[in-house]
Amino acid sequence: MQTEIIPAESSFHNAMTEPMPVVEIFSQGDEIVTGQTVDTNAAWLSEQFVLAGFHVSRHTTVGDRLDELAGLLREVAARADFCVCTGGLGPTADDLTAEAVGLAFDRPLECDPEAERQIEAYFTRAGRDMPRANLKQAMLPGGARRIDNSWGTAPGFALQADRCHFAFLPGVPFEMKNMFLESVRAQLGLYWNARPLRLVTLRTVGIGESSIQERLESVDFPDNVRLSFRTGPLENQTKLLFQPDVPIERLRAFTKQVAQAIGSPVFGIDGLDEDPGDLLDVIGRGMTRESHRLSVLETLSCGQVASRCAGAHWFIECTVVRDHVQALAKLGLAGPSLLEKSALLEGAASLAQALRRQAASDLAIAQLWDFDQDLLAERSSVVNVYTALAATSAVYTDHCTVGGTRPRKQAVAATRALDLLRRYLQGIL
Amino acid sequence: MQTEIIPAESSFHNAMTEPMPVVEIFSQGDEIVTGQTVDTNAAWLSEQFVLAGFHVSRHTTVGDRLDELAGLLREVAARADFCVCTGGLGPTADDLTAEAVGLAFDRPLECDPEAERQIEAYFTRAGRDMPRANLKQAMLPGGARRIDNSWGTAPGFALQADRCHFAFLPGVPFEMKNMFLESVRAQLGLYWNARPLRLVTLRTVGIGESSIQERLESVDFPDNVRLSFRTGPLENQTKLLFQPDVPIERLRAFTKQVAQAIGSPVFGIDGLDEDPGDLLDVIGRGMTRESHRLSVLETLSCGQVASRCAGAHWFIECTVVRDHVQALAKLGLAGPSLLEKSALLEGAASLAQALRRQAASDLAIAQLWDFDQDLLAERSSVVNVYTALAATSAVYTDHCTVGGTRPRKQAVAATRALDLLRRYLQGIL
Repeated sequence: MQTEIIPAESSFHNAMTEPMPVVEIFSQGDEIVTGQTVDTNAAWLSEQFVLAGFHVSRHTTVGDRLDELAGLLREVAARADFCVCTGGLGPTADDLTAEAVGLAFDRPLECDPEAERQIEAYFTRAGRDMPRANLKQAMLPGGARRIDNSWGTAPGFALQADRCHFAFLPGVPFEMKNMFLESVRAQLGLYWNARPLRLVTLRTVGIGESSIQERLESVDFPDNVRLSFRTGPLENQTKLLFQPDVPIERLRAFTKQVAQAIGSPVFGIDGLDEDPGDLLDVIGRGMTRESHRLSVLETLSCGQVASRCAGAHWFIECTVVRDHVQALAKLGLAGPSLLEKSALLEGAASLAQALRRQAASDLAIAQLWDFDQDLLAERSSVVNVYTALAATSAVYTDHCTVGGTRPRKQAVAATRALDLLRRYLQGIL
Repeated sequence: MQTEIIPAESSFHNAMTEPMPVVEIFSQGDEIVTGQTVDTNAAWLSEQFVLAGFHVSRHTTVGDRLDELAGLLREVAARADFCVCTGGLGPTADDLTAEAVGLAFDRPLECDPEAERQIEAYFTRAGRDMPRANLKQAMLPGGARRIDNSWGTAPGFALQADRCHFAFLPGVPFEMKNMFLESVRAQLGLYWNARPLRLVTLRTVGIGESSIQERLESVDFPDNVRLSFRTGPLENQTKLLFQPDVPIERLRAFTKQVAQAIGSPVFGIDGLDEDPGDLLDVIGRGMTRESHRLSVLETLSCGQVASRCAGAHWFIECTVVRDHVQALAKLGLAGPSLLEKSALLEGAASLAQALRRQAASDLAIAQLWDFDQDLLAERSSVVNVYTALAATSAVYTDHCTVGGTRPRKQAVAATRALDLLRRYLQGIL
């Protein structure tokens, strides 16, 4: 059932001639098989393996039953070359992973003195007495190699059984991720010639996936780049996965070509130099650099611009009202022309200017919409959103239509307001 | 490999004497094994099985490879009694589930004329031409029973192979959930004497899990009730899972006892009569019933009270400022005593009253905090939050301390403000 030594000639994978290893991910825990917890560890690990140039063939989850665990471990040992297992390393009675490994592969548990020392040190640092139960976490299957955990109490461990190299990590995502990156990823490279792919992500707001695809029709994609999209509530991402053989200059030039094809909706690019962070990080750097201060008047987005700016030193104040009539009254503006629906873009501009004068800020954003609760609630209807940014030198405006559910319309309105500010700061208005 | 007819004597499960069936969940899709998508279907299905009185022993995911799919289907057929499979029923080339089932169990695909008619009708209703590729979705493995899909194009199907009853459903969560509830859940009852558990959920805000546990120490939990907790950013839930043999009067009485032990943090109870919805639903009913209107002044929560009220007809306006000095200036209040940190609760009360007078609302909430950016950023530090609700008859105040990350502190502050309103509306202030 077990092989301790890997023959030297099989320990190095030549990607040109040998088949790729079979990789599996295995999650343990009743909280997962009863549906109490969604398993996000498996998705994260899968992505790491893809980036490292491997193919994950299977995810499996079982609960806290010793026989089911041991049975699954034997199955995996017989069919996979590498397996990361998460969960079941805690101090309680239903944490059974080490015991199951001992049972499956006939390796009785032994106390690892260094693991015991580390667990005691963890509690000493935290200023707490160590519960006796935690000593259980120092009991590792015979012959296993300890994987240190600098982020929590449970050490992980690695061992080989049958054809499979196993790495056992805690289920707490923060600990698991750090231990994978620090210890397990490098271990992969000991056995197989990993040829890491390179992922470049173009981050956009204010443009949908289908529009991005249209803009990319003019770009000639080589065979060694894979294109994919990820759509989220706050931004859309265009992902370029480059094969290992693409030279860095070629990668940079191609990324630039793709960014130019998409145009101004690209607010940042991950995976090249320093990652830019999200839209608020990009805005925050611009606001800090220029010592700007911002005031906001929201309608449709109903506090979402403010809450996305939470914690920013450059964010001064925000007023949330329901519609343009209330907005005009609030800022002491009047004039029948500003109350016309046809003049809402002009109205937003006047409001932004008034807000800029009244508040202690050099930048002000005001946003209005064609206040119609029926259109707002109806998923298939669109509403008009009018945004204005008043700066020292000029007022910039933006008009768009937004569809979808009410929460989507409100989130998109907030993003449009912030993106107008981003484009101002990046000098592309 | 396959059995078409279940012997009559084995088709009914006597929960007292027979072992429970082995249930598995199987998800298909490259987007899952590459980590592009987190599999939330498996968690949802697991919870449904637990509620129906079954034990899920395993989740498995494989990508879009015909041999891996067929191999896994044969494994499951040999070891499980019931399996729900999601994904791989779409019209594209990488949707391989039906083909894999045909291969695994030697059942060549056949066109299901009714499925074809339903797919055509779906496109007619949507006013679109049916792409040829969608006809593929009408090809089902020989002998399979169609599961109608009233929510999308892909029909599901059910069949038995070896010892296992399989149900194949689309991977789109909305379609999958509806089809499971409409067709698959009832099918379970055909083969086993399902004894559904009853889940009652006490929904709370403003109290942590450990405090709830302390308050429940006085409650004597019988063996036929299982207690669990779910902690979320917006509310904490105390879950009571009752065995099928608990009479409804006993269940009601025990739930009442638990609710009384927890006390005023319980804002609603799911699973007894009509579900109350979330905190905003409960508040919305109270505001509508009393024709109240609300204005808000936020500091720490920075727009989160407003954004959680988005779309509510009773929500009038909100002002977001950084600290008490700015808040007092904004509402035209002054007086050095109100600027003292020791008088922030009094300050919040004055602000709420002023806001109530100035705005067109009969209720006003104002919230202040001991404006200290260092404490805010430090995870291990707590900040003080002072909330006041001004109503026609009186001003109600609330003081609490909040710890954790900056986003957590801000979210908890928003929840405290809304919960003060909830308790006012429920008459428990």
